[in-house]
Amino acid sequence: MDLPKPPYYAVIFRSRLDTDDEAGYAQTAARMVELASGQPGFLGITSVRDAEGAGVTVSYWESEEAITGWRENAEHIAAREHGRTRWYAEFFAEVAKVERAYGGRRD
Amino acid sequence: MDLPKPPYYAVIFRSRLDTDDEAGYAQTAARMVELASGQPGFLGITSVRDAEGAGVTVSYWESEEAITGWRENAEHIAAREHGRTRWYAEFFAEVAKVERAYGGRRD
Repeated sequence: MDLPKPPYYAVIFRSRLDTDDEAGYAQTAARMVELASGQPGFLGITSVRDAEGAGVTVSYWESEEAITGWRENAEHIAAREHGRTRWYAEFFAEVAKVERAYGGRRD
Repeated sequence: MDLPKPPYYAVIFRSRLDTDDEAGYAQTAARMVELASGQPGFLGITSVRDAEGAGVTVSYWESEEAITGWRENAEHIAAREHGRTRWYAEFFAEVAKVERAYGGRRD
């Protein structure tokens, strides 16, 4: 995704996957992207996972209120509970206010 | 890496690698981690790249001054120039202040 104009908010989610329920995980992960995209204040999402199961997902939001709305979504709450108990060996989430942004594509 | 106590700063670097110089890229990427780790105010770094070349690296810093110090490092300046011209099809960098953090390991 391209860059919104700062300030905006980022939720940085780092995780290590360790599960025998990969199909359930993949299905829920795709559903969460679909669901987040429909939330008020959603700006975008980037997700990368390597072959060893280490992943970083960054979702972008207009405001703290938008993040709160997403956090309180019932289907998202249920997915987080599955994540904690069945999918992730570890995870870390950080809420951050983006103050500067730059970059682009090579010609 | 584990979580420092907020507030602290994150530099979110998203990129798509597209190069015929993968060895040069890998060598420089490892050197940048080594070099950043020795900078004043460095807190940690997480880097994930998938098989298609999409990557997210998040580096963590105590302050904006620490980020400025790292940005002005001469070897880092040279590496960024190579990144722009030879390694990345696209990249986006964001500087963000982390306000809340949580997470942990599964028992």
